[in-house]
Amino acid sequence: MISWKNTDELASFKKLSSLDHRVKLTEVMAGESGAKRVHDYSVKMACGLSYNYAAKAVDETVIDALAAFAEEAQLAEKFECLYNGEVINTGEKRLVLHHLTRGQLGSNVVFDGDSKRSFYLEQQKKIADFANKVHAGEITNAAGEKFTTVVQIGIGGSDLGPRAMYLALENWAKVNNTFKMEAKFISNVDPDDAAAVIASTDLAHSIFILVSKSGTTLETLTNESFVKDALAKAGLDASKHMIAVTSQSSPLAKSSDYLAAFFMDDFIGGRFSSTSSVGGAVLSLAFGPDVFARFLDGAAAEDKLAAEKDIRKNPAMIDAMIGVYERNILGYDATAVLPYSQALSRFPAHLQQADMESNGKSVNRFGQRIEYKTGPVIFGEPGTNGQHSFYQLLHQGTDIIPLQFIGFVDSQIGSDVVIQGSTSQKKLAANVAAQIVAFACGKQDENLNKNFRGGRPSSIIIGKQLTPEALGALLSHFENKIMFQGFAWNVNSFDQEGVQLGKVLAKKVLAHETDGALKAYSDLFEI
Amino acid sequence: MISWKNTDELASFKKLSSLDHRVKLTEVMAGESGAKRVHDYSVKMACGLSYNYAAKAVDETVIDALAAFAEEAQLAEKFECLYNGEVINTGEKRLVLHHLTRGQLGSNVVFDGDSKRSFYLEQQKKIADFANKVHAGEITNAAGEKFTTVVQIGIGGSDLGPRAMYLALENWAKVNNTFKMEAKFISNVDPDDAAAVIASTDLAHSIFILVSKSGTTLETLTNESFVKDALAKAGLDASKHMIAVTSQSSPLAKSSDYLAAFFMDDFIGGRFSSTSSVGGAVLSLAFGPDVFARFLDGAAAEDKLAAEKDIRKNPAMIDAMIGVYERNILGYDATAVLPYSQALSRFPAHLQQADMESNGKSVNRFGQRIEYKTGPVIFGEPGTNGQHSFYQLLHQGTDIIPLQFIGFVDSQIGSDVVIQGSTSQKKLAANVAAQIVAFACGKQDENLNKNFRGGRPSSIIIGKQLTPEALGALLSHFENKIMFQGFAWNVNSFDQEGVQLGKVLAKKVLAHETDGALKAYSDLFEI
Repeated sequence: MISWKNTDELASFKKLSSLDHRVKLTEVMAGESGAKRVHDYSVKMACGLSYNYAAKAVDETVIDALAAFAEEAQLAEKFECLYNGEVINTGEKRLVLHHLTRGQLGSNVVFDGDSKRSFYLEQQKKIADFANKVHAGEITNAAGEKFTTVVQIGIGGSDLGPRAMYLALENWAKVNNTFKMEAKFISNVDPDDAAAVIASTDLAHSIFILVSKSGTTLETLTNESFVKDALAKAGLDASKHMIAVTSQSSPLAKSSDYLAAFFMDDFIGGRFSSTSSVGGAVLSLAFGPDVFARFLDGAAAEDKLAAEKDIRKNPAMIDAMIGVYERNILGYDATAVLPYSQALSRFPAHLQQADMESNGKSVNRFGQRIEYKTGPVIFGEPGTNGQHSFYQLLHQGTDIIPLQFIGFVDSQIGSDVVIQGSTSQKKLAANVAAQIVAFACGKQDENLNKNFRGGRPSSIIIGKQLTPEALGALLSHFENKIMFQGFAWNVNSFDQEGVQLGKVLAKKVLAHETDGALKAYSDLFEI
Repeated sequence: MISWKNTDELASFKKLSSLDHRVKLTEVMAGESGAKRVHDYSVKMACGLSYNYAAKAVDETVIDALAAFAEEAQLAEKFECLYNGEVINTGEKRLVLHHLTRGQLGSNVVFDGDSKRSFYLEQQKKIADFANKVHAGEITNAAGEKFTTVVQIGIGGSDLGPRAMYLALENWAKVNNTFKMEAKFISNVDPDDAAAVIASTDLAHSIFILVSKSGTTLETLTNESFVKDALAKAGLDASKHMIAVTSQSSPLAKSSDYLAAFFMDDFIGGRFSSTSSVGGAVLSLAFGPDVFARFLDGAAAEDKLAAEKDIRKNPAMIDAMIGVYERNILGYDATAVLPYSQALSRFPAHLQQADMESNGKSVNRFGQRIEYKTGPVIFGEPGTNGQHSFYQLLHQGTDIIPLQFIGFVDSQIGSDVVIQGSTSQKKLAANVAAQIVAFACGKQDENLNKNFRGGRPSSIIIGKQLTPEALGALLSHFENKIMFQGFAWNVNSFDQEGVQLGKVLAKKVLAHETDGALKAYSDLFEI
């Protein structure tokens, strides 16, 4: 029997809160004890990845308490309900089915008579067929020439995830000879965004993907017009250059304005849509359907691990619970995501949406005010770049910010130079290893300006190489971590009512239906 | 007489702390009171910009208290000391002279017999001459062909600022016919960064700028080798394709490996170097020296306003003090930077370094532990993209995050479409106006999931258009804001000892001089 209780109603959480026990990283991470932790505090992930939490301020006592908390909060059972098709998005009364876009975790989920897994597979197959025909030159522009470029028009979840995944695999695809088409992205309603992309794009050889679940997203429709204008000016028939990714009920679904339409549905939240048609169309066109399928396989394999009941064998669950411990017991208000991989340059921006939009809530899933902290601020940049930027504050600032490192043994491209006896890739890896220890252990110095107090917790996900499978596993890990934290906080991670008020007021401004401060600001902008 | 005291030693700060007075934004921003605030709480900046703090939780009482605090902390006098050449960077015993790269604010600053303003001007002139010759085809590649591309090799301050400024003006330059050369950037020690840039660059027509003050930055020297290898493989003479920006005492300064060398010095911190040769070389080559000069003019004009003693007429000072109030009295731990301009897409990343590296400190300028909070976490993405990402947490999360909006009346490119009766640019502006009011005022709803509590403070910098001058003013505003906050917190904003320990440990890893946890992590990375 599933019971949805607030965090502070759980006996196990109260016990965790009253635990008179703190792990001192400067002590436990020193000497052989530290080496043992690195060995022991590691959970196997899929595709050769592992989640290592040696440098988190936990030990067996804390993990036992987190395990009891996870059990009382029924995290595993709630995930089971979710993937078996219960209405987990209670606010919008929707199922939550992004896991089904990459595998069949539990029962066959049937909605309105349709098997949802079959529906998602069918869309993948339609996209694969379309992409293969484009790549083979069977679908071409009006002049019979091959398309070379794909431009995604979407915002939020239709932009950040697909863009981050594209950048993550672009170089990998090039060296593995699976790079088919360059991808570009238009997102912002700022006209300079669309204008700049259009000016630098070979329109005659481009396919534009219009991505909007509802078919009514203002930014996306505006940018569609922008592109249609440009195509018309170039003497091109827009309907031969545009495809749509939308829901079957959207006004876009059956429009003759598009070369093809691929579908998602209401059970795929935008920020969880990278493995649906939203990511599928652009990634299949850019890298080929096989690469997209490998990405899905990685995500599916990681999803299976998230279904594991033993928190010590479930990387997403233990990561999630350590995060809750840091947020609600240790009182840390932000988390930095630090991938030591230039290919993951926009992965932190994607996680920023996935996490902050999901769990940045002040009411529980029943719409009642809660009295504890939920989702933290998420930010990050790739290392080593970040080391030369904001790491100063992370090391010596007045707040402690938990860190999530990501690193790989091998680079993607494989091209490298040896300087001072080591390759760049070794230097990159040496830096992340060094940072973890520097943050955890610190270093005493009589000159307090050069003193490092340490005690700054981090975890790291390590893999052999950032392949399509590894990327899928990485994405799934964080999606499931966010889901488990939402369960632990008893919030609905799958709606986003907080974005509505701004939309309503913006419409009033444009309709000149304003007074007071809103009118005053409108005047400043000469609206 | 200048007195460097900790924040909590100041009587005015104690008074501010004990002020039994909170401004309720939901009340004061409602109705005509709100309109009046938008009108009144605005400070003129240079180049047609203005700083509007109507939606900050302040009123005359709070501002009076902040003014007294600013006065007792001697912010204006300390700035005067700084620009007149005192040793403000006490940790490294250095002057702090980035203001002199763009104007003469006070006395002639002479060091070792040299006028520093003359030195910076001389470098600007040398760069301008070099850039003009490149643009005119007087300096060419070995085949006598014009250079078309410039690639900056640098990290941290040698990357983030120049890159953000380049992106900010790229489209403006294109529509104003001052776009001379495309710029690219290599920063990360991750070999995939250099390899990907090199693979997509026409090496035969590229100038590479090696930027390192010390001439010893590991990432930069490694990437230089990467580029030299690639040039050699392409049969090109590297010394005909590379220039250096460095200090006169650096090993790079007199090397015959470079076509030319331009200088900075120890008095320009990396994160404040966009207006020095570090930004000057790449921006002058990309857009022409005249555009770079206009950018400097904007910064110089804004610097003058920062020297104003009346906090109500000094945008950087009032912004800084409101920030301290939010951090130390109201207890807010992060600040989001939200430019409604796609051209400013990397401006938040630059501010993240500038702010967090400067003020993320736990000791005062005398190396003594301090007992109050200093620099907050800084993060951000351009609007409206952010609205579809992390704004959910900003509106309805459990923490209050102060917001710094930036917006412009006109777009840069000017190309636009009318949809539903308005242009994209109007929609963009309408959104930022709407967001400010939504955050401040909120909206009550019986369904708490749709309820907006409001009371979430923001300020906005508004301008007519993002021109080179406006960009310079914007940059100067934030640099000076950070400086004033450093003065208020009594920290040294101009060193960064917190980045050292990681470097030391990384070298140990590469030398295999490790044990304990550091060895264990090294093993995981197969180092």
